[in-house]
Amino acid sequence: MSRRTMVKAAFQGELGAYSEEAAIQYFDSSIETTPCRDLTDVFEKVETGSVDYGIVPIENSLEGDVNQTFDLLLSSDLKVRGEINLKINHCLIADPSTRLESIEKVYSHPQALAQCRNSLKELGLESVPTYDTAGSVKMIREKNLLDVAAVASQRAAVIYGMKVLEEGIQDNPFNYTRFLVLSKEDAVPTRADKTSIIFTTKHIPGALYKALEVFASRNINLMKIQSRPTREKPWSYNFFTDFEGHRKDTVCREALEDLRSKSLFVKVLGSYPKAKQGL
Amino acid sequence: MSRRTMVKAAFQGELGAYSEEAAIQYFDSSIETTPCRDLTDVFEKVETGSVDYGIVPIENSLEGDVNQTFDLLLSSDLKVRGEINLKINHCLIADPSTRLESIEKVYSHPQALAQCRNSLKELGLESVPTYDTAGSVKMIREKNLLDVAAVASQRAAVIYGMKVLEEGIQDNPFNYTRFLVLSKEDAVPTRADKTSIIFTTKHIPGALYKALEVFASRNINLMKIQSRPTREKPWSYNFFTDFEGHRKDTVCREALEDLRSKSLFVKVLGSYPKAKQGL
Repeated sequence: MSRRTMVKAAFQGELGAYSEEAAIQYFDSSIETTPCRDLTDVFEKVETGSVDYGIVPIENSLEGDVNQTFDLLLSSDLKVRGEINLKINHCLIADPSTRLESIEKVYSHPQALAQCRNSLKELGLESVPTYDTAGSVKMIREKNLLDVAAVASQRAAVIYGMKVLEEGIQDNPFNYTRFLVLSKEDAVPTRADKTSIIFTTKHIPGALYKALEVFASRNINLMKIQSRPTREKPWSYNFFTDFEGHRKDTVCREALEDLRSKSLFVKVLGSYPKAKQGL
Repeated sequence: MSRRTMVKAAFQGELGAYSEEAAIQYFDSSIETTPCRDLTDVFEKVETGSVDYGIVPIENSLEGDVNQTFDLLLSSDLKVRGEINLKINHCLIADPSTRLESIEKVYSHPQALAQCRNSLKELGLESVPTYDTAGSVKMIREKNLLDVAAVASQRAAVIYGMKVLEEGIQDNPFNYTRFLVLSKEDAVPTRADKTSIIFTTKHIPGALYKALEVFASRNINLMKIQSRPTREKPWSYNFFTDFEGHRKDTVCREALEDLRSKSLFVKVLGSYPKAKQGL
């Protein structure tokens, strides 16, 4: 009997979290997803091999501390092997028997509530913060609450058998979260790739400029740069950078060698195909 | 009768929030602070002149969406006239009659709870998320809850007449939040200044490198750089950058002129004395 092995992916949050939606957008719905309480658990589950992939938020996240993702990437041996730009489409979700007029309170993660501030104000609803979006839907279901709603993804409504009363209630329609796909190996070159790295320069005038020269002189396009103070030394910075190309491309390999000679520290987090949907 | 006019500063959160503590660290305790529900209110109160200063979190924030601060700075005419690096020292706070052994639940902002995860686990406490740190202390006081605690600043305990049961319960002792001080004018040069700007480059290889050349060629030290996708155009980026020096210093003025000629957009947010405590 032949049987396809199911791909396993861990994410932070409850079933129906946006991170799980990102996993499904990336792999398709045949994957087996494992909810984790926090990002540390996601990293651990991939490191120990109990899942194949981890899905972690890296920009504009609703359900996780993005700085924590950076810190975990800095200390982990896992590789970035993909990225997902997920459009965040907040829904107002309640019990199937609940009518919009009878709702008084709405539960969700503080960031999700903040992103729907105007809509919730117009509806005259009182906001109550919780740990996460899908978890709020789960709680309404478990406690059988009939005069409240939650802000979460459409998928959360489906999973917990609840009803979507309003869709797309975020105040700003341009609402994306970027996720990274982690595994023990990064991806093979596809000619439309991106590489994520962390590097540390000396804190002297022009240090960052000299570091970026290694990319500019080779016409390598930088897609992202983020400075973060290192925890060890005051006035010393780590730079989280994404550039176009695969670490195995000759030009990128040379740029990375060059960067190593000019920096205190360089760590290649991984190379992976660029997401089709832009942030 | 002579009377000193009291300086007024608005911040986001309840009385006793870390943002208020930052205001007091910066101005001293004789200031009059105005709590605001959200960051938009803080900006508005300074813009309309109902307060002199606004205190807003910009990095590693516990009590506010830092991305929202960036967006508000981009669209506002307010100037940055100071910065504060506040050490975040989380306390476990309860009613004066409450003993540590009788506590079951602990309330706070999800980020604060996450930063104390290990400590709270050791104490065997269940975490309950709320809107903010000081607001949780206020709630315990108002509802007269005796078997719960909150995670907040020492100042919050003092304000609401509550007791500090444990101090410094954050898992990582290196826990700073950086705040900006906003007003209608920025600060005069002091020879130990910093300037914050936003600029937009074309999304072509080497654009950022060419932009940074204006600083490197003049030995101007970059202290921070952050890329954010613009909301208007996919694949177009704003860079939030801090550099050493005052916008009125000759060398900085020339660098900014040069940057304007190489960028799509440059906005000087303000020049101000560097904070003494480093991030």
